[in-house]
Amino acid sequence: MSERSDQTSSGILGTIATPGDLKRLSPEQLTLLAAEIRDFLVAKVSRTGGHLGPNLGVVETTLALHRVFDSPRDRILFDTGHQAYVHKIVTGRQDGFDLLRQRGGLSGYPSRAESEHDLIENSHASTALSYADGISKAFALRGEDRHVVAVVGDGALTGGMCWEALNNIAAAKNKLVIVVNDNGRSYAPTIGGLADHLSTLRLNPGYERVLDLVKNALGSTPLVGKPAYEVLHAVKKGIKDAVSPQPMFEDLGIKYIGPVDGHDTQAMESALRRAKGFNAPVIVHAVTRKGYGYRPAEDDEADCLHGPGAFDPQTGALTAKPSVKWTHVFAEELVAIADERPDVVGITAAMAEPTGIAALARKYPERAYDVGIAEQHAATSAAGLAMGGLHPVVAVYATFLNRAFDQVLLDVAMHELPVTFVLDRAGITGPDGPSHYGIWDMSVFGVVPGLRIAAPRDAATLREELREAVAVDDGPTIVRFPTGSVAADLPAVRRAGPVDVLREGERKDVLLVAVGAFAKLGMEVAERIAGQGYGVTVVDPRWVRPVPIELAGLAGTHRLVVTLEDGVRAGGVGEAVASTLRDAGVDVPLRSLGVPPGFHPHGSRAEILAALGLTAQDVARDVTEWVSRLEDPAGVRQPTS
Amino acid sequence: MSERSDQTSSGILGTIATPGDLKRLSPEQLTLLAAEIRDFLVAKVSRTGGHLGPNLGVVETTLALHRVFDSPRDRILFDTGHQAYVHKIVTGRQDGFDLLRQRGGLSGYPSRAESEHDLIENSHASTALSYADGISKAFALRGEDRHVVAVVGDGALTGGMCWEALNNIAAAKNKLVIVVNDNGRSYAPTIGGLADHLSTLRLNPGYERVLDLVKNALGSTPLVGKPAYEVLHAVKKGIKDAVSPQPMFEDLGIKYIGPVDGHDTQAMESALRRAKGFNAPVIVHAVTRKGYGYRPAEDDEADCLHGPGAFDPQTGALTAKPSVKWTHVFAEELVAIADERPDVVGITAAMAEPTGIAALARKYPERAYDVGIAEQHAATSAAGLAMGGLHPVVAVYATFLNRAFDQVLLDVAMHELPVTFVLDRAGITGPDGPSHYGIWDMSVFGVVPGLRIAAPRDAATLREELREAVAVDDGPTIVRFPTGSVAADLPAVRRAGPVDVLREGERKDVLLVAVGAFAKLGMEVAERIAGQGYGVTVVDPRWVRPVPIELAGLAGTHRLVVTLEDGVRAGGVGEAVASTLRDAGVDVPLRSLGVPPGFHPHGSRAEILAALGLTAQDVARDVTEWVSRLEDPAGVRQPTS
Repeated sequence: MSERSDQTSSGILGTIATPGDLKRLSPEQLTLLAAEIRDFLVAKVSRTGGHLGPNLGVVETTLALHRVFDSPRDRILFDTGHQAYVHKIVTGRQDGFDLLRQRGGLSGYPSRAESEHDLIENSHASTALSYADGISKAFALRGEDRHVVAVVGDGALTGGMCWEALNNIAAAKNKLVIVVNDNGRSYAPTIGGLADHLSTLRLNPGYERVLDLVKNALGSTPLVGKPAYEVLHAVKKGIKDAVSPQPMFEDLGIKYIGPVDGHDTQAMESALRRAKGFNAPVIVHAVTRKGYGYRPAEDDEADCLHGPGAFDPQTGALTAKPSVKWTHVFAEELVAIADERPDVVGITAAMAEPTGIAALARKYPERAYDVGIAEQHAATSAAGLAMGGLHPVVAVYATFLNRAFDQVLLDVAMHELPVTFVLDRAGITGPDGPSHYGIWDMSVFGVVPGLRIAAPRDAATLREELREAVAVDDGPTIVRFPTGSVAADLPAVRRAGPVDVLREGERKDVLLVAVGAFAKLGMEVAERIAGQGYGVTVVDPRWVRPVPIELAGLAGTHRLVVTLEDGVRAGGVGEAVASTLRDAGVDVPLRSLGVPPGFHPHGSRAEILAALGLTAQDVARDVTEWVSRLEDPAGVRQPTS
Repeated sequence: MSERSDQTSSGILGTIATPGDLKRLSPEQLTLLAAEIRDFLVAKVSRTGGHLGPNLGVVETTLALHRVFDSPRDRILFDTGHQAYVHKIVTGRQDGFDLLRQRGGLSGYPSRAESEHDLIENSHASTALSYADGISKAFALRGEDRHVVAVVGDGALTGGMCWEALNNIAAAKNKLVIVVNDNGRSYAPTIGGLADHLSTLRLNPGYERVLDLVKNALGSTPLVGKPAYEVLHAVKKGIKDAVSPQPMFEDLGIKYIGPVDGHDTQAMESALRRAKGFNAPVIVHAVTRKGYGYRPAEDDEADCLHGPGAFDPQTGALTAKPSVKWTHVFAEELVAIADERPDVVGITAAMAEPTGIAALARKYPERAYDVGIAEQHAATSAAGLAMGGLHPVVAVYATFLNRAFDQVLLDVAMHELPVTFVLDRAGITGPDGPSHYGIWDMSVFGVVPGLRIAAPRDAATLREELREAVAVDDGPTIVRFPTGSVAADLPAVRRAGPVDVLREGERKDVLLVAVGAFAKLGMEVAERIAGQGYGVTVVDPRWVRPVPIELAGLAGTHRLVVTLEDGVRAGGVGEAVASTLRDAGVDVPLRSLGVPPGFHPHGSRAEILAALGLTAQDVARDVTEWVSRLEDPAGVRQPTS
């Protein structure tokens, strides 16, 4: 690859301001441009952090898409939007990459506010085909002659929504191009029946010449980690299928073109032009390599530098010093529990490393299941495992469990099954923006009868509450904690039922109920208020659903109750505590602080919390004002944030 | 078929107390038994109402399953449990059918409390394969040599969960039998790519002789409503595929046996024994006819007497007099709106008739989409339609939208798209039991930023609020209403913002906030309380999310606020109103009434509401007690229901 450059606009890249500029380039210029874009990506992302591997894998595909189709008249949709960096680069946003994923800077996902070329802002996988079905139906009904193209990864195809969409796309028979960006892995090596099938296709010497690519892939990486006999089986099947190249998709009524070398711009363009010519749904199967063209990413067996923080561009080594993360504490304790209890098994949804389930899989491979990007199946197969006498621990990001609400409610909780859901990245997460925020779980899952929710405040309580959760045998539990490094343990002065009292004095003005990692914030707030002469008790309820009745007793001896949670206020712990107090006849004034309604933009966790008024200073000011007004006839009015 | 019988135990059926009793029967006796079971089903369900068509279709399949496998050691799972009546009949529960679906009587779904042969109580479709995957993994890990069999309809296969499960089942390679009960229709003719593919297979003269059956099917019913050219296409493809019978499922790594005549017990037994012999996952494709063997059901083109109320067993005609249902009012108004606005389109998820979308489809076939049992796709394809400039109205049962929470949150609301969700069967529904109750929507969807929720109280406000919802152009809306007949209109005395004041007097003791159809209950309660000298104002907020700020003004002039809603208290309208009052600094005592936590059993709507203390008498007693205690230092304590 060409020499690294720090310039925003250099060489050919400097001449590309709109997709139209791509159309006048020669094949040789395109090859140069692809190399420049890879340099650009590595240079920029090494400073800001971001999704590197996926974007290195779609450089040529993206260039080909913008040469064949006319965005924004034609609609190009990126599933799991973190593969849209190249699209951003060629649609006039090169300058934004210096502030990528930073507050006020370029989003790590498509953003309608940034560009008319962007449409889908949701970063959850497997949705693009459904949007595409709707958009193509709208174009057809309105008589508009426009194309819709959806780019979807092979990993995302394991999500059930894609199946639902494919059936409907086939039935509707509208003009719609599906580009399957098949790198044989999603976050981790993809598993399951479809993956085997795609391996078969990848080996199919069909319409396009990709044998060299495949040979290279086989040479360097074992084919998505499959044992040799499966590779042989795939080869054998590939030869058989060469006669009628794509039974599966064609059985569903969708035309198939491929496999195409996704790093050959000419081959991709030719396939896309052919697809554009069909007046019906068609799949273009592009075989790519995640991290392609950047050695440290290609050499990273685990996840091809999927989404690193800032790193050294020469080596790929992360810049930040290692620290103890919440995930590590969970992973370590889970393995310790599994050592003692053979009935404990782990499940994750295509995120074995990021959730820590990989640690269990390394020690007990037969007791860890990666179900693919399939949270619904994760929950209901966990119900099945529990029916079979095991205790599954399902570890996913908090935002992704929303996809399995119905399954947690009816398949797990209604059957009173012992399944523990571990929600990593709960609360305000930061640079990935609104669709990654884990701020909904305590409200949404709070309505599930019999479900218990724990929010540990530090490493010690994470270990303790995880053990308490796995000990529950008559219903589901959730243990939720934030992203990042875990701060020092915050010991309790005493325990009241499940509630930890972290601080109390003789005067009892304010009872501060601080949820999970916000316990630290609560203690800081208490320091500030106490400095003004008010008596503040700080408690961590540890288990927030059901609300510990002990809180009613504590509330009754204070003049004001303030709740503080790293989740949306609507239906959150604050409302649940208020309801518990009302039911207990405790009419002490209560005010709740948490994430206000809205889809909040990306930024660092600290920046977002500051923007939402959730700093020690802000909270202390609010609480002081409320408590000082307690005798005021105007009452304790809450800011309407 | 044999003569109708009202006896619970007659002929061979009278000798069947456990599945073991089936194993000693001769083929001739089995044929007689099947006829007796059909008589039994028609006789019983004609009195109680229930799911008739689906159960008539699985008589022979169920008998064969219980002869080949050993329940409960082997686990037989019924997807969408309404097809488990025959299973109940042969597992010792014939006597229960007199009280089918009635309070305290036999459940219309599998029930662990009823029998050790039952395991899955959730009636939502497409889940069984996921449970089966989990159970078979647990058996494998624990070294138990037990079989798992899942019976799933072709309609349920359109749900994404099945795709997720199939991939995992294929990868796990455990012993697991999937019986696809393919009647070519779910609730209504199934659509989509998979349906076309199954039609192809249905016509495949493969392993078993089913040509006669297919010929009959083609003679009497057009093949799942497909146009002739598609049937020809299917035939042609069937002949081609006869050489390698099942590429699609086998591509996924799952063996395939079929198609088998699902009404031939011998053929089904033979196929199931073969499947049992495999030491790997295998699909048995059973071709059945919904309503088979009962002429009125076979003749019912619309839905084969899918789930009628009580009916005349001779003619199939429903016993109940027709009345104006909520669904009819919605359907009529939707068509009227569509007449005026060409951008309004309808979507449903395999429930065109029960939700009223069929009325739109009849008048504007190109503007109504049935996406299959695929609520996630319904929501996100609606987002796509809205991005394309249309205003989709998505009509589903309230309980089923839970499956699309994430899609409503991120795909629709985050993009501020104008999509209207119409939730039929909201609140306590009745005989279908806990997994059909639409009691979660106001809590769960109440957290979605920018989503507005309307709960009309009668036909007039349903029409009005539907029009208001479809007029919103900057975000999603929900209009939710209960099942059954709509009572007389309840006019307002005045309107305050969006809030209808239904009753007010000079004395202002209690403000009763009655949500939706509970407005009628609220008025009855007010009558009773007023009789005791208290002044009661009754309001219907009409739009419950966001909570109208006008309620704070109204609350401030009363001594007590009581909310009354047909949904769970946790996170419901009551908590949201309380939060709104706190934020406005209005610290008037508030008590909330709604559905208490738990999975409540089946029964009539009136019976369940009575059991939950939601009658006029109960509510009036509670409110009177609260208001009478307002001066009492013990305060206004809420019963902890």
